[in-house]
Amino acid sequence: MFTLYSMQRSGNCYKVRLALAQLALEYNLVEIDIIKGETRTPEFLAKNPSGHVPLLEAAPGRYLSESGAILWYLAGGTPLVPDDRLERGEMLQWMFFEQHSLEPYLGAAHFWLVLIKGGRDLQMHAIEEWMERGYKALRVMEQHLEHHRFFAAGRYTIADIALYAFTHVANECGFDLTGFPAVRAWLKRVSEQPGHVSMDWRPAALEIAE
Amino acid sequence: MFTLYSMQRSGNCYKVRLALAQLALEYNLVEIDIIKGETRTPEFLAKNPSGHVPLLEAAPGRYLSESGAILWYLAGGTPLVPDDRLERGEMLQWMFFEQHSLEPYLGAAHFWLVLIKGGRDLQMHAIEEWMERGYKALRVMEQHLEHHRFFAAGRYTIADIALYAFTHVANECGFDLTGFPAVRAWLKRVSEQPGHVSMDWRPAALEIAE
Repeated sequence: MFTLYSMQRSGNCYKVRLALAQLALEYNLVEIDIIKGETRTPEFLAKNPSGHVPLLEAAPGRYLSESGAILWYLAGGTPLVPDDRLERGEMLQWMFFEQHSLEPYLGAAHFWLVLIKGGRDLQMHAIEEWMERGYKALRVMEQHLEHHRFFAAGRYTIADIALYAFTHVANECGFDLTGFPAVRAWLKRVSEQPGHVSMDWRPAALEIAE
Repeated sequence: MFTLYSMQRSGNCYKVRLALAQLALEYNLVEIDIIKGETRTPEFLAKNPSGHVPLLEAAPGRYLSESGAILWYLAGGTPLVPDDRLERGEMLQWMFFEQHSLEPYLGAAHFWLVLIKGGRDLQMHAIEEWMERGYKALRVMEQHLEHHRFFAAGRYTIADIALYAFTHVANECGFDLTGFPAVRAWLKRVSEQPGHVSMDWRPAALEIAE
């Protein structure tokens, strides 16, 4: 059985928990508090030198990090990943877009403004950059969604899971989605997929202690 | 035949040109000058709303962006991508790591300090962040390479191509690799792979005008 090292309020971790729920896969859940430094301990860094969650123990002693890679690993061969090579490439394109052009801005805003709630290390130029680049990514998504119901293959895939995680909480950290009707309609479509769970949901019965 | 929209001096574009060369795939090459704004024209944005190169026309009218997705698309089913599901997940992990934790810092430093050579928009806090986070990524790579010859599957894969592009020019933008002997030895191994081409190399006979 998989073991997932995850922080409940992390958007990157939510992606993996959502996919696991929709794929009806059982797993052990180890809650890791980034804010308390639990990704910086020698024990955790031995599992993932990058010091990030989510982290999946995919096989005994084999740890997989990076939410996009974990999604791809878990969902391969399921309806959440298209079979067609080019459609799969397009799906990965949006997953790389998410990690490169959206998560660093919406994710940082969510971490600092919602989870940490400010802090002395937070600088105004950083917030301005998150806003400018975050809106730029949202405009690219809006343009695509004006003509497509989902991001790849004409159906719900792990690209939608990846992009949903931070976009659905963007309003909590100051992003105004009023001017993004196609994004808002897509958020609703994603939330209505079979087996959808919210960011707050946790598989309590499966939880184990670190 | 594929058409690749690429800028010769871009590290992200070099990844794709290197893979195409090693896979001995023929393609049309369209040179795009980011600095002259050629990724911001209506014609280019119609092909890729993100406004980035590399961009691959994979089939007539079907455009694939994001270097990692293009690499995956081109190299699927070849020796540059492992067959084993978990090894493939580990390869993708390093490709997401590259786009999230290395390219935004080494890539930005390369763009601003080597290609643009400064400019009035360049701010000191940005350079400090590139250095701090770039060295952090290099330390994670060093730690992995102390025990592995390549990033995934025990052999040369597209994860190595992805990580090589900006790492092999890091010295040009102020990164000192003296303290990273495992990274330096890996750079040499990558440069010695069959069919390796340098960043300057171009398939002149295939070039077409935009």
